[in-house]
Amino acid sequence: MSLVRVQNFSVSLDGFATGEGQTLQAPFGHAGERLHDWMFATRWGRAMLGRTGGSGGVDDAFARQFADGIGAEIMGAGKFGPPGWQDDPEWKGPWGSNPPFHTPVFVLTHRPRPSVEREGGTTFHFLDASPAEALATAREAAGGRDVRLGGGPTMLRDFLAAGLVDHLHVVVVPLVLGRGVRLWDGLEALERDYDVESTSSPGGVTHVTFTRRAV
Amino acid sequence: MSLVRVQNFSVSLDGFATGEGQTLQAPFGHAGERLHDWMFATRWGRAMLGRTGGSGGVDDAFARQFADGIGAEIMGAGKFGPPGWQDDPEWKGPWGSNPPFHTPVFVLTHRPRPSVEREGGTTFHFLDASPAEALATAREAAGGRDVRLGGGPTMLRDFLAAGLVDHLHVVVVPLVLGRGVRLWDGLEALERDYDVESTSSPGGVTHVTFTRRAV
Repeated sequence: MSLVRVQNFSVSLDGFATGEGQTLQAPFGHAGERLHDWMFATRWGRAMLGRTGGSGGVDDAFARQFADGIGAEIMGAGKFGPPGWQDDPEWKGPWGSNPPFHTPVFVLTHRPRPSVEREGGTTFHFLDASPAEALATAREAAGGRDVRLGGGPTMLRDFLAAGLVDHLHVVVVPLVLGRGVRLWDGLEALERDYDVESTSSPGGVTHVTFTRRAV
Repeated sequence: MSLVRVQNFSVSLDGFATGEGQTLQAPFGHAGERLHDWMFATRWGRAMLGRTGGSGGVDDAFARQFADGIGAEIMGAGKFGPPGWQDDPEWKGPWGSNPPFHTPVFVLTHRPRPSVEREGGTTFHFLDASPAEALATAREAAGGRDVRLGGGPTMLRDFLAAGLVDHLHVVVVPLVLGRGVRLWDGLEALERDYDVESTSSPGGVTHVTFTRRAV
């Protein structure tokens, strides 16, 4: 059975997944890269940057599940570009010519545009659709493999509230960001449907996994 | 040097330290006892209830620091009783005749009253004072030992914002409470002045300690 998964989704101790003031240069606003430093310290994260070395422990074990068994991603409009990208018909995302997805990616937007094919197997499609509709489309494209929800927090909250998520991997980073967009709002009692496990790492973060209970 | 410490302060994954709808019967509102179940599963917590047994691992190691080296506590008005206790001149707190503090306890309230002596060494004093003023008074009473800040979240935020806390032990419980009173609001970049360490326990919670850096 194809699962709906969230991997490597980092939040601050106070629950913010992005800071305030998002721009092209600062896609996470005033949070900068601090929510994701843990990932780029792993073997997997360093390899993503074309580097060697990095830690091979629990942070790495979680991080490298990002692509494993994934056949498609769904992302929110805010992840595809800075505010206003919809007004630029040439905008193809902030990842350069070879984005790190290597599958079909479905971008949720109220202003769909023609699909964009990039190197390495990534094709961006644009959907004006509900979470359930987008998921049906992504599932078909995934060809039996899992669908990853790529965030940001707003789209993720919508999918969680709709009960569509099978596996949620959140990484709590010990920062108090104070402002930005929160992950947990409106999700009271989310834990009821999941087995929850917390694992702190020597790198200083805590991996919290929500795995849907067998019914 | 006498330190200002917070011990066993539990918050939900979304940062709430109390739920909504606090009453005498439900001092943590809709959160019930769920934020503190981890503590009452330890040897120390069970002994508090007059029972034997309980876990003797990392949760217990943290929990039993509650009283160790403490000479006084400061608590907010909301911890001393349900809303409206100030109107009841006979109110002596919700802990019965032998409260679990066994030191002077300073209750912050805009309506001070005469001190109340209880069994076991606990005396409640009532102060209408700023955090710094209350701390000076509690420190004197503590006679060289540490001062514990007992919460709730509102008073704790005030002391943290004023830079008065040396050691903060927060226990993150994997619940999404959704509503109540948050701990972290208004404390952006709190981590800058502290060494932060996170330790998940087999009991399912994560102990996060903020220890003030040597200057």
